Amino acid sequence: MGLGKMLLEKLQPADIRRLNESDKCALCEEIRSVIIDTVTKGGGHLASNLGAVESTVALFSVFDFPKDKIVFDVGHQCYPYKLLSGRYEKFNTLRKENGISGFPKRSESAFDCYDTGHAGTAISAALGIAKARDLKGENHQVIAYVGDGSFNNGLVYEALTSMQILKTKILIILNDNGMSISPTVGGMHDILNDLRSETEKKAEGIKLLESFGLSYLGVKDGNNCKEMTQSLEQAKKLLETNSVLLHIHTKKGKGYEFSEDEPTLTHGVPSMGAKKEREYSEVLGETLCQLAKTDKSIAVVCAAMLDSLGLKQFFTDYPERAFDVGICEENASVLSAAMGTAGLKPYYAIYSTFLQRSFDEIIHDICQQDAPVTFCIDRAGISGPDGETHQGVFDLSYLSLIPNLTICAPKDTEEFKEFLNFSANYPHPLAIRYPRNGLIKFNSENKKIELGKWEYLQNENSNLTVIAEGERCLTMAMEIAETLKNKGLFIDVINARFIKPLDEEMLSLIKSDYIVTIEDNVFLGGLGAMIDGWLTSNNKRHIVKNYAYEDKFIPHGSVKSLQNRFGVNKDEIESYITEVLK
Amino acid sequence: MGLGKMLLEKLQPADIRRLNESDKCALCEEIRSVIIDTVTKGGGHLASNLGAVESTVALFSVFDFPKDKIVFDVGHQCYPYKLLSGRYEKFNTLRKENGISGFPKRSESAFDCYDTGHAGTAISAALGIAKARDLKGENHQVIAYVGDGSFNNGLVYEALTSMQILKTKILIILNDNGMSISPTVGGMHDILNDLRSETEKKAEGIKLLESFGLSYLGVKDGNNCKEMTQSLEQAKKLLETNSVLLHIHTKKGKGYEFSEDEPTLTHGVPSMGAKKEREYSEVLGETLCQLAKTDKSIAVVCAAMLDSLGLKQFFTDYPERAFDVGICEENASVLSAAMGTAGLKPYYAIYSTFLQRSFDEIIHDICQQDAPVTFCIDRAGISGPDGETHQGVFDLSYLSLIPNLTICAPKDTEEFKEFLNFSANYPHPLAIRYPRNGLIKFNSENKKIELGKWEYLQNENSNLTVIAEGERCLTMAMEIAETLKNKGLFIDVINARFIKPLDEEMLSLIKSDYIVTIEDNVFLGGLGAMIDGWLTSNNKRHIVKNYAYEDKFIPHGSVKSLQNRFGVNKDEIESYITEVLK
Repeated sequence: MGLGKMLLEKLQPADIRRLNESDKCALCEEIRSVIIDTVTKGGGHLASNLGAVESTVALFSVFDFPKDKIVFDVGHQCYPYKLLSGRYEKFNTLRKENGISGFPKRSESAFDCYDTGHAGTAISAALGIAKARDLKGENHQVIAYVGDGSFNNGLVYEALTSMQILKTKILIILNDNGMSISPTVGGMHDILNDLRSETEKKAEGIKLLESFGLSYLGVKDGNNCKEMTQSLEQAKKLLETNSVLLHIHTKKGKGYEFSEDEPTLTHGVPSMGAKKEREYSEVLGETLCQLAKTDKSIAVVCAAMLDSLGLKQFFTDYPERAFDVGICEENASVLSAAMGTAGLKPYYAIYSTFLQRSFDEIIHDICQQDAPVTFCIDRAGISGPDGETHQGVFDLSYLSLIPNLTICAPKDTEEFKEFLNFSANYPHPLAIRYPRNGLIKFNSENKKIELGKWEYLQNENSNLTVIAEGERCLTMAMEIAETLKNKGLFIDVINARFIKPLDEEMLSLIKSDYIVTIEDNVFLGGLGAMIDGWLTSNNKRHIVKNYAYEDKFIPHGSVKSLQNRFGVNKDEIESYITEVLK
Repeated sequence: MGLGKMLLEKLQPADIRRLNESDKCALCEEIRSVIIDTVTKGGGHLASNLGAVESTVALFSVFDFPKDKIVFDVGHQCYPYKLLSGRYEKFNTLRKENGISGFPKRSESAFDCYDTGHAGTAISAALGIAKARDLKGENHQVIAYVGDGSFNNGLVYEALTSMQILKTKILIILNDNGMSISPTVGGMHDILNDLRSETEKKAEGIKLLESFGLSYLGVKDGNNCKEMTQSLEQAKKLLETNSVLLHIHTKKGKGYEFSEDEPTLTHGVPSMGAKKEREYSEVLGETLCQLAKTDKSIAVVCAAMLDSLGLKQFFTDYPERAFDVGICEENASVLSAAMGTAGLKPYYAIYSTFLQRSFDEIIHDICQQDAPVTFCIDRAGISGPDGETHQGVFDLSYLSLIPNLTICAPKDTEEFKEFLNFSANYPHPLAIRYPRNGLIKFNSENKKIELGKWEYLQNENSNLTVIAEGERCLTMAMEIAETLKNKGLFIDVINARFIKPLDEEMLSLIKSDYIVTIEDNVFLGGLGAMIDGWLTSNNKRHIVKNYAYEDKFIPHGSVKSLQNRFGVNKDEIESYITEVLK
């Protein structure tokens, strides 16, 4: 029909069901090209969204959104849905500050009924929404759209287990491409394989799902719009009597090798000292490989994401000591704890916000037993364009409250290496937090790491001391120091490389009247709050100003701009210090 | 043979395998009688331990502890194991301060290889220990002993899913009595039922387990020592080639209706004002039933434990709005979030330390979406004889760091009721924390709850203000106030009924030079730390003393004594205040 861009521009959600097959195909191609265009320019999830195009068009053909509700698990496959639900015009603002989010957001559209970002929540959420529907006497469908990678996650299992308790009806679309971020592995993977086969084993898989109270339909071709529409019609019919699992098989997107994060970000890091930048993950991988050469007890555990955590080489070199358990953050924690209690030296690498999933296990299994587990916490601090669910701004707070846990933040990738070397001989739980991108070397003597000891990056016997953690905040502090120096003003700058324990000795020796703390974390429970608590308890009378993030969820945007907006504004800090020292 | 008590007194673990069947039976009876005797006197878990007697004797007959390792899931069935591994003589100190723990403790015995307390960790832990064994070239067996109640838990599923990744061999003993704390429900329950049947369905259940890489053996009579010994021998043989799940069926203990906690505790609460005591859980159940009469949107969600949470009546009166999803704390959180976003008013009742399991979901699903979920957090603060894993001393810290979440603690059960009434019209996430036992009414005007507003319980324009949260700490403060009054000294006492937000107005108006904070929580991230942070940020120059728990895991003991030992010592507080005011 050659409608070209006309379709997405003019199409109302309700019009989609009236398109003929060839228009639907054209629409799919248009969606695909808009996504490729937008993501290759501005970043975002590509493969997962490309795989979801036809099934999403089919969903609009069969269901009536927003009256019907859909929950996208993780949410990294919602771009086609956004394009079809009135967000085409804003789509060029995807993941940009004040633009539309890369994940479903209730605040953004009535078509988004539930916010996601982390894996495994969709089935529970759909059950809750469906139950609310039943109790309120409403009449609409509820759909959970879940990738196979999430099917390893315990929460999915808990949700399936509760289906018969909740006695409500939902449609689960299992989008199976045989890949989560890392290849999908384990028992459920085998069951999905069985379901994909046309053997006797398929029947067994189906019976398993039935024992959870689900009717099974599949495997259907998720990249065939017509087949998908028919399958969804069929599923809708089945929904009259039972919950349904529609198993669809999709092809991974066109295989773009593409950075997950906004490429501009990787160039926005302020540079001090040596200018060359490096990802912390590279240093992690290299250093662990080196350490593992001589230390046979070192093991690496992760919950998917091994590539972006920098662990590919370790998995190649030491496959017998490298464990990727899929999106199972709790299991990864307990495995680490147990290996630690049994004489190994486990390193558990994970993104800051995903570690929240094993909070209880960090307390109950790792720290209570004082197991020598090292957490390598990537994407700590504001991570930027992924928004609320991915901002690693809570870890200092939720970790520092746990007994037996030591927490540190390197000032650069060199110091990160030092911390990893330190960790190898540290027989207790240790958490090292770091952002994605880093400097190779900060200007400092880079003194050897000593437990709980901070270092001065600048000591001028000033009347104001800045205490900051991690590369970003220390860079900020040193840039301010530099600017002020040019005005004849001098500050002291401390690298609070250990957040817990605080360096109480150094703290108690601070002579300056003013203290400024800066951190890449919320204020509550973080470095500044810990320092305030220590100063107060010890009756110290400094005048303290804490720069940390406000008590709010931080949306997507660039790191710098979000820091500025949410409480760690360099100019403001500089003005305050100038005011004080003038 | 009439060996009587001789057996347990003199038996070495290695001797057990040499006993004949009738001596083993005698031993089982002896163990059973010691457990009944000890638990009925001093409290503890009865039914689960009585069910585990024969299988534990059989374990010692077949395996070689402590060379072989066993992880008890939850750990509430380890008493027979403790009795047989050298702790008979100390068994009368069970759950008593400085006595032996009611849960496995590595610090207590070489026979305990892994600490537990929360559900679902054992299979992960056993896998980690077994993998460490393999890598270290050791040769011993690793066993996970798991109740069927835990089999609903997502962590168990994550562990099963990772069996083929870890490529190691463990024995899982599934102790199936068809009951967790609340009756076991859901999909896995059906599968276990199938396995117990001798139908075609049994074969399907077996195939399911095999797809996770397990050889299945069962169902065996777990209360028959001879059958258990034979089954374990058989399992040991199978372990040469594969991991094994040995499914045993046991009878619930002799059905003692017995309080889970040390009965002395329920009499140790200091009384102020009206003397009569009441459990908070009763008030929860009653009030929710009342509220639900007129508010059709109210729903109740819990993750097992509905009885001890006080919800039995609600489940009877409103079965269509009451959901017990079994030991699935994450699922319960997401269900609550979803119901909240979809127009219901969910109440999620749970013990403080179990809520740690849904930390990520509290952030990601409930608070980020600002869903109107009310957490009813029972057993907050030190809970006493259950020890480290059950001390609810972290919730103020891990909750206060989360944006959008309001946190409060009632001063008595009356105020708890007020808070529940308040919650009914509060359209945001709200956490109410409370201990098990409570007073009916404190001496105060019991002003109507207003968001973020504290109240004075005593206002004497003193130079010292005590700010305390919750009944226990306020009771302590008021008792101190009383004592001091008799000495002619006066203090002000504030009920910090909201921990978040702090009552900044009241804080800023405090004229006294001295402030004392008291809380039933660790210091880091808690009420005192929040107040310190606020005072520091606002340049307030009070002299502050914070009484809260030290940064340590708190073992089992009596509430009072543990408070004294770990940082909230009434005498010390009184001395300090006296010193200041004199």
